[in-house]
Amino acid sequence: MEVKIGILTVSDRAHEGTYEDKGGPAIESWLQDVLTSPWSALKRLVPDEQPLIERAIVELSDQYGCHLIVTTGGTGPSPRDVTPEATEAVCDRMLPGFGELMRQESLKVVPTAILSRQTAGTRGHSLVINLPGKPSAISDCLSAVFAAVPYCVDLIGGGRLETNPDRVKSFRPGSTMSS
Amino acid sequence: MEVKIGILTVSDRAHEGTYEDKGGPAIESWLQDVLTSPWSALKRLVPDEQPLIERAIVELSDQYGCHLIVTTGGTGPSPRDVTPEATEAVCDRMLPGFGELMRQESLKVVPTAILSRQTAGTRGHSLVINLPGKPSAISDCLSAVFAAVPYCVDLIGGGRLETNPDRVKSFRPGSTMSS
Amino acid sequence: MEVKIGILTVSDRAHEGTYEDKGGPAIESWLQDVLTSPWSALKRLVPDEQPLIERAIVELSDQYGCHLIVTTGGTGPSPRDVTPEATEAVCDRMLPGFGELMRQESLKVVPTAILSRQTAGTRGHSLVINLPGKPSAISDCLSAVFAAVPYCVDLIGGGRLETNPDRVKSFRPGSTMSS
Repeated sequence: MEVKIGILTVSDRAHEGTYEDKGGPAIESWLQDVLTSPWSALKRLVPDEQPLIERAIVELSDQYGCHLIVTTGGTGPSPRDVTPEATEAVCDRMLPGFGELMRQESLKVVPTAILSRQTAGTRGHSLVINLPGKPSAISDCLSAVFAAVPYCVDLIGGGRLETNPDRVKSFRPGSTMSS
Repeated sequence: MEVKIGILTVSDRAHEGTYEDKGGPAIESWLQDVLTSPWSALKRLVPDEQPLIERAIVELSDQYGCHLIVTTGGTGPSPRDVTPEATEAVCDRMLPGFGELMRQESLKVVPTAILSRQTAGTRGHSLVINLPGKPSAISDCLSAVFAAVPYCVDLIGGGRLETNPDRVKSFRPGSTMSS
Repeated sequence: MEVKIGILTVSDRAHEGTYEDKGGPAIESWLQDVLTSPWSALKRLVPDEQPLIERAIVELSDQYGCHLIVTTGGTGPSPRDVTPEATEAVCDRMLPGFGELMRQESLKVVPTAILSRQTAGTRGHSLVINLPGKPSAISDCLSAVFAAVPYCVDLIGGGRLETNPDRVKSFRPGSTMSS
């Protein structure tokens, strides 16, 4: 019944130990506040290397059965930022609406939100969502899109996620029709 | 003078006959209310199989000369949803602004709008637009984008479409410049 | 210290001389009004031919060291419009947030804004941004996105751009974190 959620920090500096990983804990803390159904976190930390990011997503999905995988970091335009490329390389299909809405919400805070290349997609029974590296932006982005996450995980055959409606009113269309 | 419009329903269940096709008739009814210039509908119904969707779009475009092809269904994140992939595979160029605006309008109604992967593109003299399967969302999406459709069909060398301005104020820039 | 900025007009008619190039001068004039740091313009004019557009971007980037390259024209759905394809072909990574925001701002002016396929991306130390051909739309689009441009050019290792805050409040996050 417990849904496994992968939390993947992508950061050269956090991986080297010269910088404390704040993105991963920010995601875990946000999920603890919002999810009311049973879940457990699988945490990974990799440097900004596309093959290592891809391998981490594939393992969290295929080997550990995470139905939701949330990444943080590596979404900007810097040469080392390759998280969106890694995500696209291992996903079966992309969901452009996530990136569009997260950028739109972040734009209300900073004009540099358009520099984020964050995206989302599905790999088998896993939904993969890219988030920025900055902890405050993580909360803004998750709050913007999470109402659609439980239904998406339903549609790809994942486990059932329930949210605290005071934090996120997750929405499941009444009809059995696929959209 | 008459513009041919292809209406393509993509649905396993409607194709098997276990579910009545409501998307195709919703598109036809919307167009009847809005278009004031002569047109005729060519209707097709295929299951959620990428090669069959691609073949239907290609036939409606190349063989029957439809200058507008509107699909319904198969745009979600479920494993069987492959209409956007089929559309991209047979289009010469993609028009991301359609999907962006349709998702944005649908977001005013349901937060799961970001799960829709609907897109649009052109194949030769045909404009192809993906719509969701749900009849109410069809009307919302067509109303959001249709003001730009007649000019787009002009630009790709299709026939002339005119709309009832009480329903949709279609817009053609005065200048002869391409944008 | 001077930043080189490439201004690339893509237009069959301007190239043939049957139409005066208004897009290139509109970009140059906008930049003159907004930039307060030293810069110089390198102007090019090519017809709507993908290989020529690609070659012009590559030369402005690799040979002349332009850290910002702004194109005008060739972004619509007409068969001759290929600037986005040329841009994508020569860029290392794409920045979808630019096209999304520019279309959204242009939508406030004309409903046909969704027909624009304009995008942005980076090639090495160069940021490439597509603008429409129409001079008034050029100003709307640059004003919409430019606050993020100086920081983006910083991130890809380009020169420092400063703007007149009465025109564009360019934003550089205080933190040294990449997003």
